[in-house]
This record gives sequence, structure tokens and C-alpha cells, in this order.
Amino acid sequence: MRCDILVVGAGILGLSSAYHLKAENPRKRVVVIERLRGPGEGNTAKSEAVFRDAFTSETNRVLASSSIEFFKHLEGEGYNLRLLFTGYLWLLSEEQFERIGDAIRDMQRDGVRLTIYKREELERLIPGLVTSFEGDEEAELMGLPPIDVGLLAHNCGCLRAEALTKAYESMFLKLGGEIHYRVEAKRLLLGAVEELGLPGEPHVWQEPQVKGVETDRGVIEAETTVVAAGVWAGRLLEPIGFDPCMRPKKRQIFVLSDERLSVLFDIEGFNRHRVLPFTILPKCSLYLKAEPYERSVWVGCSDEIGRAFKLEDDPQPELEYYKDDIYPILMKYLPCF
Amino acid sequence: MRCDILVVGAGILGLSSAYHLKAENPRKRVVVIERLRGPGEGNTAKSEAVFRDAFTSETNRVLASSSIEFFKHLEGEGYNLRLLFTGYLWLLSEEQFERIGDAIRDMQRDGVRLTIYKREELERLIPGLVTSFEGDEEAELMGLPPIDVGLLAHNCGCLRAEALTKAYESMFLKLGGEIHYRVEAKRLLLGAVEELGLPGEPHVWQEPQVKGVETDRGVIEAETTVVAAGVWAGRLLEPIGFDPCMRPKKRQIFVLSDERLSVLFDIEGFNRHRVLPFTILPKCSLYLKAEPYERSVWVGCSDEIGRAFKLEDDPQPELEYYKDDIYPILMKYLPCF
Repeated sequence: MRCDILVVGAGILGLSSAYHLKAENPRKRVVVIERLRGPGEGNTAKSEAVFRDAFTSETNRVLASSSIEFFKHLEGEGYNLRLLFTGYLWLLSEEQFERIGDAIRDMQRDGVRLTIYKREELERLIPGLVTSFEGDEEAELMGLPPIDVGLLAHNCGCLRAEALTKAYESMFLKLGGEIHYRVEAKRLLLGAVEELGLPGEPHVWQEPQVKGVETDRGVIEAETTVVAAGVWAGRLLEPIGFDPCMRPKKRQIFVLSDERLSVLFDIEGFNRHRVLPFTILPKCSLYLKAEPYERSVWVGCSDEIGRAFKLEDDPQPELEYYKDDIYPILMKYLPCF
Repeated sequence: MRCDILVVGAGILGLSSAYHLKAENPRKRVVVIERLRGPGEGNTAKSEAVFRDAFTSETNRVLASSSIEFFKHLEGEGYNLRLLFTGYLWLLSEEQFERIGDAIRDMQRDGVRLTIYKREELERLIPGLVTSFEGDEEAELMGLPPIDVGLLAHNCGCLRAEALTKAYESMFLKLGGEIHYRVEAKRLLLGAVEELGLPGEPHVWQEPQVKGVETDRGVIEAETTVVAAGVWAGRLLEPIGFDPCMRPKKRQIFVLSDERLSVLFDIEGFNRHRVLPFTILPKCSLYLKAEPYERSVWVGCSDEIGRAFKLEDDPQPELEYYKDDIYPILMKYLPCF
């Protein structure tokens, strides 16, 4: 097969890239291949599925706020993304808050909508929230910072990653794009911009070019190849000596559903959905997402040092990690857990 | 075993680090372990063994020029490093020269000693040098730029990497440092700064710390562990999820010895050793080093795209790579090859 633009991967990265590439190049044949059976079944399906416009980097702010506008546009077009502006709430110690003072000023200057809460307001709004651990030896051993300030960013929230991916798939197909599921890219075909027909091309004195992809169903030649394989990109790029500057590391999100957590779905003052915003605790960036449709709470935390770089196709959750790493922090700040 | 500072690796990185750490911490027990049988037997032995103070980055200039001063100091102390100031000579097209105009001004401002040569001077100084390929179809297909300008940096040259490594080893031992050869670091021991005696430490809420190394000869505990394993660092760091930001890629240096190359050892005007400086051709950064002691010419070239990231303990030279990639460039500019 031969096409103009070949996109490897039909997750959110691949399908959004494919849609925009096809929209800007309507006459070009744009083909997506994906080793799984449908859209967004890889890492997209494991996403936290939250979005925000509050970033310290200006580039991120521009990228994120235009994406959020685009999500709203999609909902206006009839795609139900379950877009909810629940907000992003950082719970911070005085020290942490001071450290991001400049970033807050930059964001406010750029129109990022923020509200700052004092400790007492947070205690009033979030039932049961523990904001200080004086005399709690355990909390001291764990180095848990107090909560002195809350920073709420309003133009943030959650959506269904699956629905967003399917929206891109559908728009891409409507434009005449092609998607082939269950086709796995095995290796990138490297050649020279100007092939001379010599063995061993590209030689070091030739300009190299990716000419397409060898798949388990045959070769696909392409003028342009887009590797949108996310964490699997290295499997294609490393053999040609191209560093994707990404290393695979396992992350876990635990989804909890319990009557005791219902207090988190009856909170006034932060958003019109009366749920706890996406909330980041002041320790280990531990985060909570209250998902109002299924009334579940998603909890996650990134363990950086100690967790090996490794690519697993079917990573399994570790109950011990929830019990010994996440839960001890969570229950100190929010005893309802 | 227990020590204050443990350095993994007795190449140039490990032994220079160990020497300076011991010199600054004379009362601390500093231990080096190395899986090979002696100093500098890994990548150090495969180094180009050249040095320069001409860099576009100011940080590199400061680091390099202080290193060069230190090499001179070592020779003054009686260590024979075979330090030769043969210079670094970049052969450039007009276009390439213009692109580094700002860098040249910065370097001259900072005292980097440079001389600029015109094409005619280069032709006069380097016998047989071909500087333009008008009408040469092959050279055109290969995209070989002409040589319009030469940039010579004087405070640059070559040395014996082996001798430098042994000098550091000897100075380190004189200060009371310890080196254990044939001891292989198998994994880093990760714990918490404040151990609580719980299973599974460090937990995510603890501050992690490397407590030492497990070797094939037993455990070595250390207050500070320095991973100076160069390209092998990833084998120790990746399992604890620490990105060394280095990827292993095979490089090759070909050492040539032939009567025809004797012209390169009888060149006046660049340095008092009457040899060709370390020379970089305008294509693919292909470089040549004329080694006056053994009258050999070292030739190398970095193939970036197309060469896989891979760690080999005993990489072998590829004759085809010399024949089809390096030689075609070399013989165009310097037909004496």
C-alpha cells in the first residue's frame, strides 16, 4: 500500500493528529494503522481524562486553552464528550504556595481564571478535610505538609477520553480518512531522500528519510510517517537510533466507589456540578477525581524514584501500592476514605 | 563493606571523580569498584582521546579550558600524558562558516585562540587537499560541500587516554583511595533517608536515597554513591526509574597506517609538531587524527539516524561502514587515502 501521510497509532494522539492533518491536506491520502481492535484502547483508555488551562509554561497554557475551546466546539457540534468544568484544586502549604507566586501572577495576567481559598474556607467547603497535623506523629514521620491555601483553576475539568477519541475518529472518517485496526507496525523503513539503488542505504553521506512502515500485514509506503504510538514509540524509533525522549513507566489509577465517599459529591461553592474539583493534595501530588456520572473517585499518584522504566503491554494494578503508599496519605487528609 | 563515597566505574569518569572527591574529602573513605581488570578498559580505551577549548557553549569552554590547564599541570608533575597541542582544524564551506560567526566572536572575546585560513592557504598547507568539486558528479550526488575556510583552534590536541586514566588512578591511590577491580555492580540499593523498618521501603511518601550497591562480591553500603559507569549507567539507573538521559549507540574509529599517509606528518604552519591538526571535514563531521607517535591516522564519523540504540559489551568494527560510508567522503577531500 502507498499513501501520503501514515499515522501509526489510533489513540488520542494518533487520531487527533490524523484528523488535523487530513483537515489541512484534504487531497492527501491519510491512513491510520493501529495494532488494537479500536480507537483509544491503549494508553488513552488508561488516562485520567482531565484537562486544565493552568500551567506554569506559557506554551502549555496556549496549547491547553485552545484544546479546551475545541472540546467545547465539539460538544456544540453534537459530540457528547461529557465535558464537565469541575475545576482543578491544588491544596497547598504556605511554603508551596509562595513558591508558585510568580506563576500565579503570570497565569492571571494571561487570563487564566483562578480563585484562592484560605484554610478556613476549605475546611468549611470540604467536609472532614484535615488541614493540619500538629501532634500527629505518624503524619510527621510521613512528612505531610499542612493545607494553608487552596488554588482553584476554573477552566479545567474532566471528560470521557473514549468519547473524545471516538469524536476524532468519526470526524477523520467523515473527511475521507482511512483507519486500519489490527495492523501492527513492526519497523520503520529507513531510506535516503535520494535513493541511488546502492546496498546499505542510507549511507552516512545521504540524507535519511523514513519511507513508511513494515506491518504484520505488509509494507505501507508513505511520503510522511507520523509515529503517534505514545509510550510504544520507542519500539519503532530506537531501532533507527532516534530518541523519542520518553521512557515508559507504569502508572496506576485506583477507582473507588463507596457510600462513605458520597460527601465528595455534595459540595457547594467550587462548581455548578456540586462535586469536589479534581484535587491535588500537598504530598506526592496525590490526586483525586470525583466522577459524577458513576459516582466514583479516581485516585492516583506518581512514584518516580524506585519504579523501573519498563514497557508492559498489560500492566496489572498493585493492591499493595494503594494500601501502603496512597491510602496512608489519603486517609490523613480525607478521613472519609 | 561500608564506605563514605562509592564510585562505580574506573574509567576516566570514575577515576577523575574519585580523585577529586578524595582530594576534597581527605578523611572520607572513598572506594572505586570496576567490573573490568584495570583502569580505563571500557569506553575510555575506545576514546578519540582529543581535547579542545573551542566550544559554542560557555559552560563547555570553562570546563574544557580548566581541564586542559590541569593536564598541563599533571605533565609538570611528571605524568607523561603525551599531551600534544596539534590544534583542532574545522574545514568549512562559506555557508557553514557564516552560521558559526556569532560563536566565533564569543570564543574570541573569551580568549579562545583561533586562526582563520582561506581556501588558498589551506591548499598550500595541506598537500593534495581537494577544496571544490565542480564537475564531479559523484561528489554532487553525495552532497559534499566545498572547503572555503579553515578554522584552527590552538589550545587543542590529543593525549593518551590510558595515561591520563592511570595518572588519576595513581593520584587517587596516593591520597589513600581504594580501588577494587573485577567487582561488578549488579544493582543500586534504594532505601529511604529515614528508614522505618517497614516492608517495601521507600514508600512514595518517603524521601528516597541510594544506600549503596549490590555487587557480585557482596553488598557495599555507602553514604554517597556515584554512578560513573558511562554508557553502562542505564543498567543501574533504569531499574530504579532514574533516567540517565544517555542512550548507548555504537561508534567506530578506524586506525590507518600506510606510507601514503606520511604527507600528513610533514605539514608546516599549523603546529610545532608538523602534523595535521585534528581535522573535521565539512561533511558528516568526519574527523581525522594524525597520531605522531605511531604515525597512524584515526578516522571516525558519527552515523546518527539508522544506527540503533543498543548496548554491546564487545562491539566489533564494520569494514563495510569504513568502505561505503567513511572512505567515499575521505578520498574525495584527501585523495592520499
